[in-house]
Amino acid sequence: MKKSIGKVPGLAVILVGERRDSQTYVRNKIKACEEVGIKSIVTEFADGCTEDEVLNALSNYNQDSSINGILVQLPLPQHLDEGKILDAVSLEKDVDGFHPLNIGNLAMRGREPLFIPCTPKGCIELLIRSGVEIMGKNAVVIGRSNIVGLPTSLLLQRHHATVSIVHALTKNPEQITSEADIVIAAAGVANLVRGSWLKPGAVVLDVGTCPVDDPSCEYGYRLMGDVCYEEAMRLASVITPVPGGVGPMTVAMLLSNTLDSAKRAYGFT
Amino acid sequence: MKKSIGKVPGLAVILVGERRDSQTYVRNKIKACEEVGIKSIVTEFADGCTEDEVLNALSNYNQDSSINGILVQLPLPQHLDEGKILDAVSLEKDVDGFHPLNIGNLAMRGREPLFIPCTPKGCIELLIRSGVEIMGKNAVVIGRSNIVGLPTSLLLQRHHATVSIVHALTKNPEQITSEADIVIAAAGVANLVRGSWLKPGAVVLDVGTCPVDDPSCEYGYRLMGDVCYEEAMRLASVITPVPGGVGPMTVAMLLSNTLDSAKRAYGFT
Repeated sequence: MKKSIGKVPGLAVILVGERRDSQTYVRNKIKACEEVGIKSIVTEFADGCTEDEVLNALSNYNQDSSINGILVQLPLPQHLDEGKILDAVSLEKDVDGFHPLNIGNLAMRGREPLFIPCTPKGCIELLIRSGVEIMGKNAVVIGRSNIVGLPTSLLLQRHHATVSIVHALTKNPEQITSEADIVIAAAGVANLVRGSWLKPGAVVLDVGTCPVDDPSCEYGYRLMGDVCYEEAMRLASVITPVPGGVGPMTVAMLLSNTLDSAKRAYGFT
Repeated sequence: MKKSIGKVPGLAVILVGERRDSQTYVRNKIKACEEVGIKSIVTEFADGCTEDEVLNALSNYNQDSSINGILVQLPLPQHLDEGKILDAVSLEKDVDGFHPLNIGNLAMRGREPLFIPCTPKGCIELLIRSGVEIMGKNAVVIGRSNIVGLPTSLLLQRHHATVSIVHALTKNPEQITSEADIVIAAAGVANLVRGSWLKPGAVVLDVGTCPVDDPSCEYGYRLMGDVCYEEAMRLASVITPVPGGVGPMTVAMLLSNTLDSAKRAYGFT
């Protein structure tokens, strides 16, 4: 693309506050952009910044034709209106796919979202590349967040899985999960899913990431998944570790969405 | 409202083609409007009409301030682009709630749709009025249409049910359904759900409506549900018949959405 039309895709990241996990994610995304030749800019705000500051930065990126993707790293501090801020991202640059119009188009049959949210897209990509059939399979999604659980359940349905969504108020999560061919854990509760939750041969994708203090690690903490890996690996036919499983796929899909957006913007095929 | 501000809510219905079931639904909706004092207009098009004719009618209704709700009776004939036509309905008048932005807001936590689609809203209303607890209950939605199955599954999740969505490619629909506390059947397949599909005590809402020829009926046909009523009534703790079950609730919710829309438009509380 650079050779043909002299343009490279541009990604803008907005990071608010000092959550260690968010900082790690943003660092990984920027590094990945550098590796593949995507231009990236990070705008950082302190925890106590105002909504207007964030909205102004967004507005500038919306208008900047060298920026093809805009990513607001979530979660935002409580005092900011997440919905209002995400709605301000231009639909054409919403590479995270979190705009409600995009989620609506993801949910509805016969409609096409402009972008598929990165983590769900990464999960499906992992399944497909691992030769896991999705159509007709019983899939359980644990967790119903707007950024992972919900879009993952919608995307699995697009791939014709039979989907059940388990959450904190589910009475028998263990039983429901134990009937699944495909388990996608995105609850954010360390070691929630034990061996007894899994059917032998199940495919297990662990999207959970709980930061746990660990002085022996480079940044003073490490990420733990939702799945008790030691127990699950004895039962699962396919399983992803944390870290190193779904995370890198999420980053790869972000790059892919940003590239798609740039191609659309420049009419490059 | 008429007394206080001299205005009544207005509903416009667009009906394309000559499907008997669609004609019945539209007739019932208009009759219900008359009963409660909502002004209604129906624009009918022949089966072979063009997309532009429908879009023009929509555009006129979008601009007409005496119209607070616009309803395009589905399904549309194959040659019309349903997505394009539904997208043309003004968000503020989308009393059916089928616009993808509205569906996205229905799906996402922390967001509020302008309108909740009528049939799902009617189902929840029936459950609540029948004293059925939804939170934490296992609910199975059979069918994943944009107009019933999908929004019903999203709305049940908003009410904190644990939802599984069963569809034509599901391998073991009977087993999955037999574990549900609440079954909402919206597949459009007459008598699909047999007694063996139900857990004793389950709550069963039948949203299926298959037109079946019957010369003894007024219009030459009758509507059959998805549920084999005779078998299910022996097991279910609550069950809705077809016709006369969910249908009238759908109509009631349409009136309610139209009234809400008029209140919003006129700032009337």
